[in-house]
Amino acid sequence: MNPIANIQRSDKMRLVVIGGGFAGMRLAKRSLKSGMQVVVIDKNNYHQFQPLFYQVATAGLEPSSISFPLRKVFHRQKGDIHFRMAALEKVNKDKNIVETDIGYLEYDYLVIATGVSTNYFGLENIHKHAVPMKTVSEAIYLRNRVLKNFEEALNHVNESEINALMNVIVVGGGPTGVELAGALAEMKKYILPKDYPELDFSKMQIRLFEASDRLLAGMSDKSGCKALKYLQKLDVEVKLNTPVSDYDGKTAATPDSEYVAKTLIWAAGVSGRQINGIPEDAWVKNNRIKVNEFNRMEGSENIFAIGDIAYMETANYPQGHPQVAQVAIQQADLLSGNFRKQQSGKSWRPFRYKDKGSLATIGRKLAVADLPYLHLGGFTAWILWLLVHLMAIVGVRNRLFIFLNWMWNYITYDQSLRLLIRPKIFRYNNMTE
Amino acid sequence: MNPIANIQRSDKMRLVVIGGGFAGMRLAKRSLKSGMQVVVIDKNNYHQFQPLFYQVATAGLEPSSISFPLRKVFHRQKGDIHFRMAALEKVNKDKNIVETDIGYLEYDYLVIATGVSTNYFGLENIHKHAVPMKTVSEAIYLRNRVLKNFEEALNHVNESEINALMNVIVVGGGPTGVELAGALAEMKKYILPKDYPELDFSKMQIRLFEASDRLLAGMSDKSGCKALKYLQKLDVEVKLNTPVSDYDGKTAATPDSEYVAKTLIWAAGVSGRQINGIPEDAWVKNNRIKVNEFNRMEGSENIFAIGDIAYMETANYPQGHPQVAQVAIQQADLLSGNFRKQQSGKSWRPFRYKDKGSLATIGRKLAVADLPYLHLGGFTAWILWLLVHLMAIVGVRNRLFIFLNWMWNYITYDQSLRLLIRPKIFRYNNMTE
Repeated sequence: MNPIANIQRSDKMRLVVIGGGFAGMRLAKRSLKSGMQVVVIDKNNYHQFQPLFYQVATAGLEPSSISFPLRKVFHRQKGDIHFRMAALEKVNKDKNIVETDIGYLEYDYLVIATGVSTNYFGLENIHKHAVPMKTVSEAIYLRNRVLKNFEEALNHVNESEINALMNVIVVGGGPTGVELAGALAEMKKYILPKDYPELDFSKMQIRLFEASDRLLAGMSDKSGCKALKYLQKLDVEVKLNTPVSDYDGKTAATPDSEYVAKTLIWAAGVSGRQINGIPEDAWVKNNRIKVNEFNRMEGSENIFAIGDIAYMETANYPQGHPQVAQVAIQQADLLSGNFRKQQSGKSWRPFRYKDKGSLATIGRKLAVADLPYLHLGGFTAWILWLLVHLMAIVGVRNRLFIFLNWMWNYITYDQSLRLLIRPKIFRYNNMTE
Repeated sequence: MNPIANIQRSDKMRLVVIGGGFAGMRLAKRSLKSGMQVVVIDKNNYHQFQPLFYQVATAGLEPSSISFPLRKVFHRQKGDIHFRMAALEKVNKDKNIVETDIGYLEYDYLVIATGVSTNYFGLENIHKHAVPMKTVSEAIYLRNRVLKNFEEALNHVNESEINALMNVIVVGGGPTGVELAGALAEMKKYILPKDYPELDFSKMQIRLFEASDRLLAGMSDKSGCKALKYLQKLDVEVKLNTPVSDYDGKTAATPDSEYVAKTLIWAAGVSGRQINGIPEDAWVKNNRIKVNEFNRMEGSENIFAIGDIAYMETANYPQGHPQVAQVAIQQADLLSGNFRKQQSGKSWRPFRYKDKGSLATIGRKLAVADLPYLHLGGFTAWILWLLVHLMAIVGVRNRLFIFLNWMWNYITYDQSLRLLIRPKIFRYNNMTE
């Protein structure tokens, strides 16, 4: 294996960041200030804004509005920064080298910010047939799948076949599941009957299954209850204490019954992906990397993990921190600050998570918000949700276009991106592989 | 084969339209007024605005901005209209039936508006390795391909390999080729050097090859000359009288030399695709269907062809009409009008093309326009081009978003949609097949 071409070693320390999500992107930008050479590796050339995947899936937003080219993020930065689109293959921690599909790279500091992906808990059938929602490609796929099912439903006369094509099951009552179920319910209410006047939408069932006894486990009881009420108002059939154990592409099995739907979205859990060369004992539950309060991987001096992939216990969070953007951002800020402290010989600060609150939206004018000293619901929470997400999006252009899209959809009751654009496969290349 | 489900025969005459492009979409909408039942068949669920494909390919516009859901077009229409996403397989003209992949359908009138696709003139190697530009999927593919090549160029040290990845060849000096070459030249000038500061853009060559002795053959000599001048100003190497006869994915062969580029876009010609059951002798040059002045296929009473697929000779156009949107739209208007005349027993009007002029844009503030009594160039033509295309786009939302995108790109010199979003392939379905 050759070194990655055209990245020359300078006299600066080299920081290698794996992953351009909330954690990695932020850390890379801020660490430039400590005078390091920064190399960012990601398998995509863009940052993805995960909280809005569900709006791409339900035809409300463009993929491009919630994605941002990483090169564009970085060409505004002054300093010695490099980006490479590449897949990490191995960490060689004895030699301080990462190996990727485009060559190897030495590091002085390595920060792993690879995030997490869907956890099927070993349920092979569900892995085969369910639709996950952890990348923008998967969100586009879900949009295409739902539209395709409706087109196909028109071609059937058998009622149970039609219902199977129209029905949707969402598994997992966290923010993704709740927001997706709400958005699907609004499509059913406002949009699909206009597109498919030949179908009987009173027969379409949107179901949300959650294994525990409440929705939005990361939020207050009040929010969980309100979310349930809002979803029921939107005609979503919510079943708590109902784990889904099997799905064959048409029928989902729960402990007490079976439900038919050709689309099942799996948002029931996440898990990291183990990295070659990171020692076995560094991995804890759901493949997260155990780190100390400085985000340093146990047993290493110069390898760190931040964001969803990191597992850190502190006095206030003895069970680890929630896997949310706020934690990722605060860890990135702290670690880049600590790199600067290192430079000037100061001692490092430990991580203390400052919970600024959580939000979830269920539909038009329906949301819940847990703020440090306040709980909000309904319209106020919805406006707050819109503002917070708008400000969190990277890029003025994306902010503007998302705002206009939201206004447009709000006024017209119409998400107009119902396009089934299928990728072109060319015989002689591997663009889609 | 069963009949297509859920489309009941009424006492009205049934018009079946194959294709939802400019011609088919317009005809379907207008023919409702003559009290017919209208069924539209298209293999996609959206209308595509072909004149702006090149802006999708060069990251200036979203695919969704130039596509419009056909169902949405039609749910504004009053009347007995049905849309089915399906592929035409055969016309059985003795039984007045079309066969599709979702079943068969009887018709009283059949209108073929299937358009044309890329013509490789039997050059197998070019077909294998070149990128076409006749669908929105192909435009997205081209965008991904160019971005991927630049990412890959960073990983090479061999200069000729780097140049091959950076270079682009466009074959065909019609509007598509000219507009694409201009847009690529502007990316090279304003955007790519910021994204890839590690690459030397003085080595990147954009070449446009045209087999005839001029550009924009469908427009005036003046426009052809100006387009050439504008492209040269943008540093595009234009070679006239230079047919490309071979391409192996890296090297393109012309009569006098060879040129290296890993991307070759083929915009050198179009051709229809023959339809099973349409008699051999109805097909003329480049697989167009020969029609009379009423767009009626020769030898048939109730089968018509309109738009790019139709070949009609008239006194003013003894060599057939140009394959442009204006002809398609005017033929759709005339034929739907003739259907109404039929209803009221009036005699049909023959087609007389009214050429409203042609436009082509080469870059920022650079365009050419041939109007009936006027020729324009430069900034004035560019503004006219913007206005005409904006008004031609389907849908207020698309118009608004394209306008904002254009303003944004104009002000910032930055097309920000440089996202290499690759489709997700799932193991157990055929979404990408």
